[in-house]
Amino acid sequence: MMKLTISKAIEVLQQTPKTLHAFLYNLSDDWIFCDEGSETWNAYDIVGHLIHGEKTDWMQRLDIILKQGDNNTFEPFDRFAQFENSKGKSLHNLLGEFSELRSQNLEQLKALNITESQFSLKAIHPELGEVTLGQLLATWVTHDLGHIAQIARVMAKQYKQDVGPWEAYISILHK
Amino acid sequence: MMKLTISKAIEVLQQTPKTLHAFLYNLSDDWIFCDEGSETWNAYDIVGHLIHGEKTDWMQRLDIILKQGDNNTFEPFDRFAQFENSKGKSLHNLLGEFSELRSQNLEQLKALNITESQFSLKAIHPELGEVTLGQLLATWVTHDLGHIAQIARVMAKQYKQDVGPWEAYISILHK
Repeated sequence: MMKLTISKAIEVLQQTPKTLHAFLYNLSDDWIFCDEGSETWNAYDIVGHLIHGEKTDWMQRLDIILKQGDNNTFEPFDRFAQFENSKGKSLHNLLGEFSELRSQNLEQLKALNITESQFSLKAIHPELGEVTLGQLLATWVTHDLGHIAQIARVMAKQYKQDVGPWEAYISILHK
Repeated sequence: MMKLTISKAIEVLQQTPKTLHAFLYNLSDDWIFCDEGSETWNAYDIVGHLIHGEKTDWMQRLDIILKQGDNNTFEPFDRFAQFENSKGKSLHNLLGEFSELRSQNLEQLKALNITESQFSLKAIHPELGEVTLGQLLATWVTHDLGHIAQIARVMAKQYKQDVGPWEAYISILHK
């Protein structure tokens, strides 16, 4: 296990827009809009979801924690906002929007000069109860990584039948 | 499920070196060399493993299938070759090497002008028995995607404790 630090967390948060751009930018719609079945997300949905997080979740919740005010309960996060917000936008639009928002948020995060002693500051998550600033930061990072893995998994599953007996070796096809 | 085609497969095979570069190039050693415990791989090991596949696996096996000779059994693939072959090389070296090898292999693949009627050509895998050209191609693609997801998972797990109650929402931490 690595020790959670602001600088190591930022390393991961900084790579995500570039990684998604390299991953998705030149793929055709078949790859971008494939999913794992009904009620599951495709890569386009996931990029929209990440955008909504940049707009309404991570930095807003960080601010609530840092203020330590009387009302320190987070707004619930809308996991389905992207279905409305992404309408009419191309994936290329979304990748650009995500990159810009992430970049602005990381500038703000750095400017806050958060110290590790602040990692234990608390607020209330509407479903999970008491959470800390350090937990929010670690979740931001793992949330990015989870969605990168999800996109890879969704795409891999398109060839689940096509790999034939090799399916036994490709564990992502069973996840 | 998408239909397997050479052109759609190449789209994915082309993005992998760029995606890994964007993902890993600016990360510090803590991220590159972290793993999931004993006998598990870190990002550095995985890039070395992908290089060994470019050198000894995918195109070599494709050639064996296309030749349809008397001895059409694949050489076993060495899943541990990277531990020797990567010695003394930086991750940046490895990313460059992978990118170059992949690029050469895709040039060769395109030059073969494989048609879908050839997808059913067969050879013998030393453990799995009879496999087809189409299955090999689909496996090359899903193998890349599986390792992208693996790197994301290995990194995410470093913060498994740090996310606190959010662990319930981040399914990659349970894989």
